[in-house]
Amino acid sequence: MDADETRDNVVPGSDEELDTPDVRGYDFRGEFDFEELMDSYATTGFQATQLAEAIDIAERMQEQDAKVYLTFTSNIISSGLREAVAYLIREGYVDVVITTSGSLTEDVIKTAKPFKMGEWEADEAELREQGINRLGNLFVPSDRYVWLEEYLYDFFDDFFAEEKIRTPTAFARELGETLEDEDSVLKQAADNDVPVYCPALTDAEVGNFLYYYRQAYDSEVGIEILDDYDSLIEDGLLADTTGLIAVGAGLPKHHAIMTNLFRGGADYVVYISTGMEGDGSLSGAPPSEAVSWGKIKEEDETNYTLVEAEATLVFPLLVASAFK
Amino acid sequence: MDADETRDNVVPGSDEELDTPDVRGYDFRGEFDFEELMDSYATTGFQATQLAEAIDIAERMQEQDAKVYLTFTSNIISSGLREAVAYLIREGYVDVVITTSGSLTEDVIKTAKPFKMGEWEADEAELREQGINRLGNLFVPSDRYVWLEEYLYDFFDDFFAEEKIRTPTAFARELGETLEDEDSVLKQAADNDVPVYCPALTDAEVGNFLYYYRQAYDSEVGIEILDDYDSLIEDGLLADTTGLIAVGAGLPKHHAIMTNLFRGGADYVVYISTGMEGDGSLSGAPPSEAVSWGKIKEEDETNYTLVEAEATLVFPLLVASAFK
Amino acid sequence: MDADETRDNVVPGSDEELDTPDVRGYDFRGEFDFEELMDSYATTGFQATQLAEAIDIAERMQEQDAKVYLTFTSNIISSGLREAVAYLIREGYVDVVITTSGSLTEDVIKTAKPFKMGEWEADEAELREQGINRLGNLFVPSDRYVWLEEYLYDFFDDFFAEEKIRTPTAFARELGETLEDEDSVLKQAADNDVPVYCPALTDAEVGNFLYYYRQAYDSEVGIEILDDYDSLIEDGLLADTTGLIAVGAGLPKHHAIMTNLFRGGADYVVYISTGMEGDGSLSGAPPSEAVSWGKIKEEDETNYTLVEAEATLVFPLLVASAFK
Amino acid sequence: MDADETRDNVVPGSDEELDTPDVRGYDFRGEFDFEELMDSYATTGFQATQLAEAIDIAERMQEQDAKVYLTFTSNIISSGLREAVAYLIREGYVDVVITTSGSLTEDVIKTAKPFKMGEWEADEAELREQGINRLGNLFVPSDRYVWLEEYLYDFFDDFFAEEKIRTPTAFARELGETLEDEDSVLKQAADNDVPVYCPALTDAEVGNFLYYYRQAYDSEVGIEILDDYDSLIEDGLLADTTGLIAVGAGLPKHHAIMTNLFRGGADYVVYISTGMEGDGSLSGAPPSEAVSWGKIKEEDETNYTLVEAEATLVFPLLVASAFK
Ligand SMILES: NC(=O)c1ccc[n+]([C@@H]2O[C@H](COP(=O)([O-])OP(=O)(O)OC[C@H]3O[C@@H](n4cnc5c(N)ncnc54)[C@H](O)[C@@H]3O)[C@@H](O)[C@H]2O)c1
Ligand SMILES: NC(=O)c1ccc[n+]([C@@H]2O[C@H](COP(=O)([O-])OP(=O)(O)OC[C@H]3O[C@@H](n4cnc5c(N)ncnc54)[C@H](O)[C@@H]3O)[C@@H](O)[C@H]2O)c1
Repeated sequence: MDADETRDNVVPGSDEELDTPDVRGYDFRGEFDFEELMDSYATTGFQATQLAEAIDIAERMQEQDAKVYLTFTSNIISSGLREAVAYLIREGYVDVVITTSGSLTEDVIKTAKPFKMGEWEADEAELREQGINRLGNLFVPSDRYVWLEEYLYDFFDDFFAEEKIRTPTAFARELGETLEDEDSVLKQAADNDVPVYCPALTDAEVGNFLYYYRQAYDSEVGIEILDDYDSLIEDGLLADTTGLIAVGAGLPKHHAIMTNLFRGGADYVVYISTGMEGDGSLSGAPPSEAVSWGKIKEEDETNYTLVEAEATLVFPLLVASAFK
Repeated sequence: MDADETRDNVVPGSDEELDTPDVRGYDFRGEFDFEELMDSYATTGFQATQLAEAIDIAERMQEQDAKVYLTFTSNIISSGLREAVAYLIREGYVDVVITTSGSLTEDVIKTAKPFKMGEWEADEAELREQGINRLGNLFVPSDRYVWLEEYLYDFFDDFFAEEKIRTPTAFARELGETLEDEDSVLKQAADNDVPVYCPALTDAEVGNFLYYYRQAYDSEVGIEILDDYDSLIEDGLLADTTGLIAVGAGLPKHHAIMTNLFRGGADYVVYISTGMEGDGSLSGAPPSEAVSWGKIKEEDETNYTLVEAEATLVFPLLVASAFK
Repeated sequence: MDADETRDNVVPGSDEELDTPDVRGYDFRGEFDFEELMDSYATTGFQATQLAEAIDIAERMQEQDAKVYLTFTSNIISSGLREAVAYLIREGYVDVVITTSGSLTEDVIKTAKPFKMGEWEADEAELREQGINRLGNLFVPSDRYVWLEEYLYDFFDDFFAEEKIRTPTAFARELGETLEDEDSVLKQAADNDVPVYCPALTDAEVGNFLYYYRQAYDSEVGIEILDDYDSLIEDGLLADTTGLIAVGAGLPKHHAIMTNLFRGGADYVVYISTGMEGDGSLSGAPPSEAVSWGKIKEEDETNYTLVEAEATLVFPLLVASAFK
Repeated sequence: MDADETRDNVVPGSDEELDTPDVRGYDFRGEFDFEELMDSYATTGFQATQLAEAIDIAERMQEQDAKVYLTFTSNIISSGLREAVAYLIREGYVDVVITTSGSLTEDVIKTAKPFKMGEWEADEAELREQGINRLGNLFVPSDRYVWLEEYLYDFFDDFFAEEKIRTPTAFARELGETLEDEDSVLKQAADNDVPVYCPALTDAEVGNFLYYYRQAYDSEVGIEILDDYDSLIEDGLLADTTGLIAVGAGLPKHHAIMTNLFRGGADYVVYISTGMEGDGSLSGAPPSEAVSWGKIKEEDETNYTLVEAEATLVFPLLVASAFK
């Protein structure tokens, strides 16, 4: 092959023009307008386009009056996204919450004592000496858990008073009812009749204090998880349309799509995740994988998307755009 | 500043020589020797060095006769790592297993019918039509679940025959006892008295079939999770030394370190994970974060490490090096 | 150890309160205010806090009248961030640009013909048939390159007319002078006397057309790169204070910090990157690594940060917050 | 919908059996055999399967007598993979090398003085005081650069003696000829007539010393990059078949596929990268994206693959399996 013969490879040309939108970013001339910025994300490409798609899907969930599942990992509550979650529930945008046990633990603590800003890099052995727990770039002084222990024992006395075997949703609801902070996720869920599913209730400090409580006060109390699973499934069966917003992945995300399988798949789905597809994990699996399982429906118009991003960066933008 | 004055910045020099090992990779001259390759990883740098550290720590767990916790996510069982996990239990290297519910589901299926190699990219809506479920680059035909349903109903009849409220560890053990495949994780765990903890037992197909079973046969059966949490904690208290190998992250990893907190932290820890530290997640948190919480001990000699890698690539190397 | 003895491990308590800010997210009550949202990121934790830090550092660059280096990878210009980059240069916020060759190629194309929105998943062999090139979720029809070839040959005639051996900065400047699009990065750089460094000029379609040009017209034209490196270093030596914003990583980021080494390190640094620290790559290296090399200064007040994020999501937020 | 009606969704069944291999991992019973382990990766799933595919493709490159391009980022040479790269060239497995300037810099240093094992976490300001540079978990004492400066000045005197304007390939070759270390990549490349392409030669310490050299000795020396680009393209045109192994991504990977475009695409391609597809970067782009551009061919039998992994973990396994 000589240079001339290469041209067909290098500059093949193309005939038809594509009829998709032009790639074009926000125009920073003139006064800044947040809504227009988010609109411009649709044609900015890469993950900005994914976020614009997520906003669009979240808006359609509402137009279609979908039953909205909000799922999140515990660290969402550790962070300042707790307030955004509480807002969504308070304003009636959310119908079902699914999360892990750290969320419950930390939401209660924050009604009494804040978490503190910290540092990613620290001398952890020294922190341990001082009783300071590191959680990414946040610090949680251990006195929070001293307070929590006492608070929970009082609650456990009431919670197990009439029945010894209870469910995680009852736990979340009755605990939420004791709280007074308007920014509490559990309080808002309790006040607004939004069930909070948390099958692995033991896997956080509430689990630790249940252990101590059983040791010290009543070894017969228990948490049963099949009742909740039934409710979650059957509640989904009643819905004409469902929408799912998964902030972070893991068990909460899977619990939502797995139970939507019974009704033939979720109708609208937004994932926000840092998971890696190539590790074959549930956390990293994009929505399309769930289509093969029947856990998410596939429609003609885009009804699911994944934003590959750390949630604190993008969830507030989603809330501000689709839920205000 | 002129060019001359810059030299102190650009070529500052250094006086003392470092006494750490030289960076040096495997010498491919001569016959290939796997053990020497793994040894050479110690001085290859980046994640190779992390893997060499993991091998070293895993060997020390055994020398110290540590109680070994092996935790893994469900997709480990989906993959060909299932056989390696079964091997470790069969050979007595593992004392406690913690996992998620997909592991139990899929280990049972594989005793009867294999998973099949598939493709990352597929037309998922078409796969759904054909009844083929995609799991990363693996395919799971849906007839596996038809078979499983029947198998589990028989098992449930026995399992709930005497007591209606059971625990996940009992579930795993009694189910394992019914299996015949020597490569089954549940069978090996049952045969070798290794408890399998799985607090969120509902979050997989075993949960789905428990739902149907309650609908069709007995609505009063239940799964209680506090008993297991007590056992997991107390079992740890009896150990002089503990070691943890977390393959993948999520709930199983946290369950292990959280319950090791009661005894003052795990002694030897190896994480293999693709998690991202910067998202503040439990899955992405390096071992050092757990030191601040007292969940992992900090010793003078390196006693914990993280290999940032997809597990199928490195776990077999770890097993071949530290557990043969 | 029995349960009671464990309490010191589990609930150690802590005496002193931390004096860092409380973790607290945006309050969505009331009318939405973008500036307040960005302020709230400082106490939202995880990467939101990193972004707030980036905004703060970018503002301080300006207050200190720093010479600002903006570096970016080629895909930034492929995306809708091109318009934001052109804006920053047009408004005088940027003093030096460093990038790779795809940026030059694509910026010129976009002055005549837009890139089009596309899809992540496509049948690439079929796209090839149609002459459509995929770039993430963007599509670039090949006729763009047919047009570019012709445009560049005219330009090359002039560019090499007087001198046969030229530099990448001259290439970028003189090419920019031929362009009319106000959203062109090259045009704005040329108009505003901002040099555009691009040592590996061959590594994109402009390189391909230089090859053809040498074949067809003049085999003696050349691109020499040492002159540019001298200028980049010496220009930095004249600055009292320097600031660096690296959007994406790779060569452009390294070129900026490496030449800042001569002056004792960059004063203010913001990285936006998806790079992975654990692979030992330059792209994944956090700013702290560059401190050890003397490429970035370490000050008492935080003068460098890394936002772990895909740039299209966060760069517009940075521009809107620190450069309006 | 009631429970019964859900069964078609939950357990749809499937008729035909798939004829792909069963998922099955290595059998650790019996004596350990490395080759069998690597074979088993084909059916282990996730990235293990990708690695097995990479080994297979690399073997076919050799069977087809392909011209083999090996590209790598600079940190590969920083790490212990340098020795593996030198081995491949020494044994005649590689025909073209493409890399970045740090590789040249560091390969020369290592002929005289080793890099040292270090730590990911360090007090970088203190390291700077001591003249120790951190590179991931490696340490490079600054005296290496003092030595290098002197070494290079001698070399520059010769290199520029007859011609003032030289190319990066000549630089690499003539520098390689001065070296004596059999594990040197540059020496092996020079000895075996393997060209080393490095368009952005300035972007590392060799660039810095070229700057000083021009200041102190001869301001007219220069590095011209178009000649090399021509050779790289034309050399590819002569090949019947080409194969590419890209260890790490960035400019080296792109340079290889871009110049393979002229000949209609590379025939066999293996990428090893940690890059993220969702950021739209060249580094993160999978081989399939390059198919749409005509840079990689698409054949019936799998001829390209991507292993998502940190290279130190998997590149030695690839070398041991496909190149021994
Ligand atoms: N096969 C399945 O994955 C499957 C099947 C049925 C149910 N489920 C359910 O989905 C829920 C979530 O799954 P999970 O908790 O098991 O974990 P997960 O898949 O959500 O993974 C958690 C984290 O572990 C790490 N990880 C996962 N796979 C890895 C790998 N191959 N290499 C390295 N790191 C890896 C990643 O950081 C990931 O984010 C569980 O409740 C589980 O029962 C999963
Ligand atoms: N030691 C050094 O890294 C070093 C030294 C001096 C100069 N430089 C300069 O820095 C610039 C940028 O470096 P670069 O272009 O060589 O590449 P890079 O370090 O920026 O890496 C590019 C991409 O390659 C992939 N990658 C890198 N290391 C990997 C690994 N170990 N495993 C898997 N994937 C990996 C990642 O996706 C990364 O984003 C170059 O101009 C180079 O000359 C680097």
